[in-house]
Amino acid sequence: MELASNNPNRKSWLDIPEGSDFPIQNLPFGILSKDGGPKKVGVAIGEYALDVAALYDYGYLDLNMFERKHFQNDSLNDLISLGKEKNRALRERISHLLSTETDELKSRTNRDEFLVKIDRLDMHMPVQIGDYTDFYSSEEHARNVGTMFRDPAKALLPNWKHLPVAYHGRSSSIIPSGQDIHRPKGQTRPNDQEPPVFGPTQRLDIELEMAFITYPGKPIGQSISTSEAEDHIYGMVMFNDWSARDMQKWEYVPLGPFLAKNFASSISLWVVTMDALDPFKTQGPNQDPKVLPYLEYEGEKNYDINLDVFLKPEGGDDNHICRSNYKYMYWNMAQQLAHHTCNGCPINAGDMMASGTISGPDENSFGSMLELAWMGTKPIQLSDGTERKFLKDHDTITMKAHCEKDGVHIGFGEVTTKILPAI
Amino acid sequence: MELASNNPNRKSWLDIPEGSDFPIQNLPFGILSKDGGPKKVGVAIGEYALDVAALYDYGYLDLNMFERKHFQNDSLNDLISLGKEKNRALRERISHLLSTETDELKSRTNRDEFLVKIDRLDMHMPVQIGDYTDFYSSEEHARNVGTMFRDPAKALLPNWKHLPVAYHGRSSSIIPSGQDIHRPKGQTRPNDQEPPVFGPTQRLDIELEMAFITYPGKPIGQSISTSEAEDHIYGMVMFNDWSARDMQKWEYVPLGPFLAKNFASSISLWVVTMDALDPFKTQGPNQDPKVLPYLEYEGEKNYDINLDVFLKPEGGDDNHICRSNYKYMYWNMAQQLAHHTCNGCPINAGDMMASGTISGPDENSFGSMLELAWMGTKPIQLSDGTERKFLKDHDTITMKAHCEKDGVHIGFGEVTTKILPAI
Repeated sequence: MELASNNPNRKSWLDIPEGSDFPIQNLPFGILSKDGGPKKVGVAIGEYALDVAALYDYGYLDLNMFERKHFQNDSLNDLISLGKEKNRALRERISHLLSTETDELKSRTNRDEFLVKIDRLDMHMPVQIGDYTDFYSSEEHARNVGTMFRDPAKALLPNWKHLPVAYHGRSSSIIPSGQDIHRPKGQTRPNDQEPPVFGPTQRLDIELEMAFITYPGKPIGQSISTSEAEDHIYGMVMFNDWSARDMQKWEYVPLGPFLAKNFASSISLWVVTMDALDPFKTQGPNQDPKVLPYLEYEGEKNYDINLDVFLKPEGGDDNHICRSNYKYMYWNMAQQLAHHTCNGCPINAGDMMASGTISGPDENSFGSMLELAWMGTKPIQLSDGTERKFLKDHDTITMKAHCEKDGVHIGFGEVTTKILPAI
Repeated sequence: MELASNNPNRKSWLDIPEGSDFPIQNLPFGILSKDGGPKKVGVAIGEYALDVAALYDYGYLDLNMFERKHFQNDSLNDLISLGKEKNRALRERISHLLSTETDELKSRTNRDEFLVKIDRLDMHMPVQIGDYTDFYSSEEHARNVGTMFRDPAKALLPNWKHLPVAYHGRSSSIIPSGQDIHRPKGQTRPNDQEPPVFGPTQRLDIELEMAFITYPGKPIGQSISTSEAEDHIYGMVMFNDWSARDMQKWEYVPLGPFLAKNFASSISLWVVTMDALDPFKTQGPNQDPKVLPYLEYEGEKNYDINLDVFLKPEGGDDNHICRSNYKYMYWNMAQQLAHHTCNGCPINAGDMMASGTISGPDENSFGSMLELAWMGTKPIQLSDGTERKFLKDHDTITMKAHCEKDGVHIGFGEVTTKILPAI
């Protein structure tokens, strides 16, 4: 795929700080508001957000494709509902307008109606999430968990290499970066010989994940093949799947995780489109045993996205506790979507599907504190002299993600969340 | 609670057929359209639906409480979002207008603008479901499954009597009564010594459930207590949780059921309010061991709702295969909601929470074919001479539910679904 927007040599007439997550090759979409005004669709470029509703109002966009409601809206859902072709055309148009190839926008005297510094805006949830699914697609993560809790020799369950294991999660508690969470309370059973107890979790953990957001799918009963999947995926965000390990242990047999997960998941604010990520495609791991035909795929379907996690204790500095990469995923998004719909399950614009914890092969590439501290046996040492097996109140977790190739760096901003004490 | 609408002696000036599910004591809410017109809120009364938007237009409703958008709408969500007090006032007002106590509506010459025979209307999904949760709250069902698949002596898992086990399901595939479904395809492993295979499920089953629909909840981080729960529950529908047992067996360890369930769930069309169900409250089963304080409750929180399931083979008659009752539920709705929110998980207007399969103590009260035919060892005999272990293509399943007390019968209509062959 050769999109003009992805040309590494394209430059913007705007000054983009060196190393910015948002060069002209990225152009992620989000929902912003100015000074308490209405929510609108914005595109990040350097330190600025482009007000796409203003572009529409001043006649820069194709009136045959779009209506104003697509850009003044509480979420991206109506825009995403237009499908891949129109969303691609929109991003290509915006890339052109922001490039040195034209001064249509650059030459305007009211340029500040179009471009506002991001730090002067309020940012909101980018999508109204319909259904949310969480996969479990990193082999290293599944092996680590299986080794810790079951038999190292049988770390992977029998189905794991035959299908991308997944479960349904809760949409209502997915929150944007910057929103604090309270330590959740719940039922746990610290001692198998005693009755369960109720109280704040003692094992609050992160899960380093990425999530994709869907375009419209097909009617109920129909399936999306691996070769069709890319027509149904809009873009990606970072995803921190907060987990209470002690609650999880007590509740999850036989129907899976529930309250251990559904108190909160945090996402990043800017949705990086699959078009922007296209240059960073890479080969996935070899899949052995051979998968069933409906899970076979052609071409490169993984993405080389560097992932970093930082833990900041109250009053302390950010400690870099993990460097992983999305390319480690055993099951790719095309396979996940083909599996999810092979039974006719319908997807809608704005559904979210997360990867599951993304762990790599090295000890510092594990995507959860459970794995990083290996069930508490290897506490994480912080620069302020304290250590962590799990999170303490007032800790702040920040996740970052970026791609690099041919001198182009594109990033996802960050997803940052602070832990407040239990209510 | 003494609501005038629940007075067993209240009569309507409309002729209500003997044994109708929709006497004046019921007044369930749904979404209807006439002749391809806009979707509106309707209330069932006998063989008719009352057009509530027409009531609004002609000034019968309190303009301080309602706007037109609450009644001309694709779903009940905006109306439900108004909360319990206003929704109760609306139903009380409608009950009065339809009662013999007034002829305000009865005396109108344009009465057919208000009342249309239900069989001349199109009925739609009553709510746009946000998040959907499925509980597992019938002890008999959990015991039956545990006995069949594990150890009869340890049929219940250790957590079962300490918390209402639940998992998240898929909202996008919840469909209204009357919509056919296709037999789903998926991955199964019929033989543990061979690789898995892909194809149409060979073990398509029903689950007899009831589901409640929520009013708005509280902000994220806050909990709803058992004593507050009733302020957050709007009403109930019947729920058929279609299940593919062979897919379920292969996929569900460790994260729970996924594709075995999310291809379809069918609901009834009319939402029976908790106000209408109030006279049918009853004591629940004794809970031993004692539950943790956050799950304790006072008063009668179960409901006496008779449940019937019919199986109709192609060209044959309805066979009554199950009579169960919602009162058998070990965990009640107040406990389910208190548990669901004890960790701060937020609920929204229009969320749906299903009971899990409702099995009773007798063999003919089991709520799934898995249990009725006891894993295929006791096939169900049908009146056309055939038998069933699981469902065949072209079978039709109908579920009905009703309450009876003091000469009042109120019902839920039906949820009917036909199985079409795999695509």
